[in-house]
Amino acid sequence: MARRKGLMSLGAFLYPSGHHIAAWRHPDSKADAGIDFRHYVALAQAAEAAKFDLIFLADGVGTRGDNVEFLSRTAHSYQAQFEPITLLSALAAVTARIGLVGTASTSFNEPYHVARKFASLDHISGGRAGWNLVTTSNEHEARNFNRDEHFAHADRYQRAEEFANVVTGLWDSWEDDAFLRDKASGRYFDPAKRHVLRHKGEHFSVLGPLNVSRPPQGHPVVVQAGSSEAGKELAARSGEAVFTAQQTLEEAVAFYADLKGRLPRYGRSPDDLKVLPGVFPVVGHSEREAKEKFEQLQSLIDPVVGLALVAGLTGGFDLSGYPLDGPIPELPATNASKSRQRLVLDLARRENLTIRQLYQRVAGARGHWQLVGTPEQIVDQLEERFLNYGADGFNVMSPVLPGGLTDFIALVLPELRRRGLFRSEYTGVTLREHLGLTRPEHPAVKGKHAGVAAA
Amino acid sequence: MARRKGLMSLGAFLYPSGHHIAAWRHPDSKADAGIDFRHYVALAQAAEAAKFDLIFLADGVGTRGDNVEFLSRTAHSYQAQFEPITLLSALAAVTARIGLVGTASTSFNEPYHVARKFASLDHISGGRAGWNLVTTSNEHEARNFNRDEHFAHADRYQRAEEFANVVTGLWDSWEDDAFLRDKASGRYFDPAKRHVLRHKGEHFSVLGPLNVSRPPQGHPVVVQAGSSEAGKELAARSGEAVFTAQQTLEEAVAFYADLKGRLPRYGRSPDDLKVLPGVFPVVGHSEREAKEKFEQLQSLIDPVVGLALVAGLTGGFDLSGYPLDGPIPELPATNASKSRQRLVLDLARRENLTIRQLYQRVAGARGHWQLVGTPEQIVDQLEERFLNYGADGFNVMSPVLPGGLTDFIALVLPELRRRGLFRSEYTGVTLREHLGLTRPEHPAVKGKHAGVAAA
Repeated sequence: MARRKGLMSLGAFLYPSGHHIAAWRHPDSKADAGIDFRHYVALAQAAEAAKFDLIFLADGVGTRGDNVEFLSRTAHSYQAQFEPITLLSALAAVTARIGLVGTASTSFNEPYHVARKFASLDHISGGRAGWNLVTTSNEHEARNFNRDEHFAHADRYQRAEEFANVVTGLWDSWEDDAFLRDKASGRYFDPAKRHVLRHKGEHFSVLGPLNVSRPPQGHPVVVQAGSSEAGKELAARSGEAVFTAQQTLEEAVAFYADLKGRLPRYGRSPDDLKVLPGVFPVVGHSEREAKEKFEQLQSLIDPVVGLALVAGLTGGFDLSGYPLDGPIPELPATNASKSRQRLVLDLARRENLTIRQLYQRVAGARGHWQLVGTPEQIVDQLEERFLNYGADGFNVMSPVLPGGLTDFIALVLPELRRRGLFRSEYTGVTLREHLGLTRPEHPAVKGKHAGVAAA
Repeated sequence: MARRKGLMSLGAFLYPSGHHIAAWRHPDSKADAGIDFRHYVALAQAAEAAKFDLIFLADGVGTRGDNVEFLSRTAHSYQAQFEPITLLSALAAVTARIGLVGTASTSFNEPYHVARKFASLDHISGGRAGWNLVTTSNEHEARNFNRDEHFAHADRYQRAEEFANVVTGLWDSWEDDAFLRDKASGRYFDPAKRHVLRHKGEHFSVLGPLNVSRPPQGHPVVVQAGSSEAGKELAARSGEAVFTAQQTLEEAVAFYADLKGRLPRYGRSPDDLKVLPGVFPVVGHSEREAKEKFEQLQSLIDPVVGLALVAGLTGGFDLSGYPLDGPIPELPATNASKSRQRLVLDLARRENLTIRQLYQRVAGARGHWQLVGTPEQIVDQLEERFLNYGADGFNVMSPVLPGGLTDFIALVLPELRRRGLFRSEYTGVTLREHLGLTRPEHPAVKGKHAGVAAA
């Protein structure tokens, strides 16, 4: 097989003080980064200057868990930070080219609001918006929205599928050239190019049209994060980028082939969806410096926090009654994110980790792929995954911010560029163009083209 | 009675091409202003340079009506414009002092989302956010949210009251100094200063806490627009500024006294709520120039649009079967905004207007107070209302944008300042400080102070 051509995509996954669970305690981090707007402006502008495809924001609609002793010792768990839509909109005003991807759950939102806010962000930013579609498996979040418990796994995904259909349908409420704005005749729009959705489904009844004209990208890019069977089907049907987590090259290549192989069933091409696994890079000028950086962070993890984090990743299972230096006990299946639980447990079994070793292993990257080394060592790994079709690019989860991102930019990007794997300049304007995704034609226009072809 | 002291507040109510129904057809307007972000940046920065208290954005969660012939001839009715939360967040990044007030309906939202987004905007903007709380009486909007019809008037206000209580309760989830962020001890927050709402009411069940720390203003400023009996009670209980519509000085003074008189019943002082009526100013260097400006706009109104607008203001009553130059027929009471309907009909009866004259009268200001004249004439009117306690300030609804706002700034503001009625520099930083509203103490702290005072 010929060497894979083309460039990889890179996302800057911004998490207030950094992705390592103890990042907020690091001497170089801002402990109040979650409410420091200038911190985010500096990060977004640095990522844009470095030609990243996008910045990425996760989300939770509530604090996670009721273990206040744990919560009071962590800056994670979405306790005190900006809401993503407001933050991305503000960042749109101080950036010009970088994509802006934010998470919004289908579980406790209305599709009209989600369609409208991302369409508005796409207009404000000139075609740079992306919606990370997630479902919510956390009962503490459910209880902020009139429910006593979260939806069961299967229900969540049925609702998500219908939700996604309504959102994309609303984005097509108007054809691209529907608005005439002809001052002389007084015609503001062409009635024939206005499409009322009239959706009536199991979960939603939505009239339409959306009260925002068609987004510059046609549709903001739809990103997904689920890696379960239901999540993969949803991604194959409606995802355009997938944020995922694999530890090994074999797992990554298998996941990539599995996901891309599902696309033709939905009339889509493998190029219509980009696979962007998370990577947690700790980079040093030498291997020793990288390891020391990492150990410094690991030493800042409080055991209370580490155990609670493992519980969060394994669906609420509490390991605090077991010896920290003993093995991981058998865990029952839960209703929580199944693929994530499996990943964490496979990791522990494969490396025969103790509970303490497990929490230290997952603490930083939280189940994502962790790389500690020199720029060359890190690029070797990224290149291997990219060239072997294990990824179309990566979502970079800097351990500490801003330092981890500026290190990646200063040390790793030059090596990626030297090997011809990453851009030196933007060639496109929109997020779709950065990612190499085509702009969706309006269904009515597509219909006309099909009619002409058939005639 | 001594001459009223203090300065008036001014809001810049931004509506894409301007508030006049035909503004988009005016030769100087941008017909695509609703999706032109640079247009809004220029307006917000101009209003800030002129020391306005705030910019104000209305909202509708759907296009209004199914008369496509009408809709296709108007840029109003929220058909193709930015969503307010995203737009205000983006404007927060390019302004520094001006307040940012956006509308969000309690009818088709969840209080957790609304509390969170405005809290986030308050952090992003450094204490400049305001929430204009409205209820929605439009069935076309209801049908975008799984409902066949909108809530009845009384239900809407009961829901709104509970909604407002949940939102302010969520803003008090954390005391101001709850977040310690002590790197050495590892304590991120003080558990004693975290307050879980645990709200269970008729319409909402919301656990909490909010996952945003207490906003810089304590609470973003709560603005309301309802002038019905239920609306006034809601404003007296939880409003801090009221956007209202009165035609005459007598009506304005009576409304002002009525509303302020209700506050003590809720343990509040008259200064805790500011009355800011809308004003639609057409200003010229001479009276003749002002009138010509206005007539130019009036001449651009399409009868189809004018009649549909009257229908919208009177609760859906269709006058298109009646002679345009005949009198207004009797209208039945409807479930729509009652106070607005009454205002429009009182105006028609008082001035014995024909249908055509009525639609021309309400077309521009849409039931608000319309002033056409020289800077001196306009300031005479504003001063009279302010000095006679008919208003604490005004929400300026420019007929055409940007021209109407730049005219107001260039011609009217110097005269207001010459008479000592409006500021020349900001003296505060937050929206609360601009409006002269106190920052709400956290209930737990207030409790402690009360305990000390009693001891």
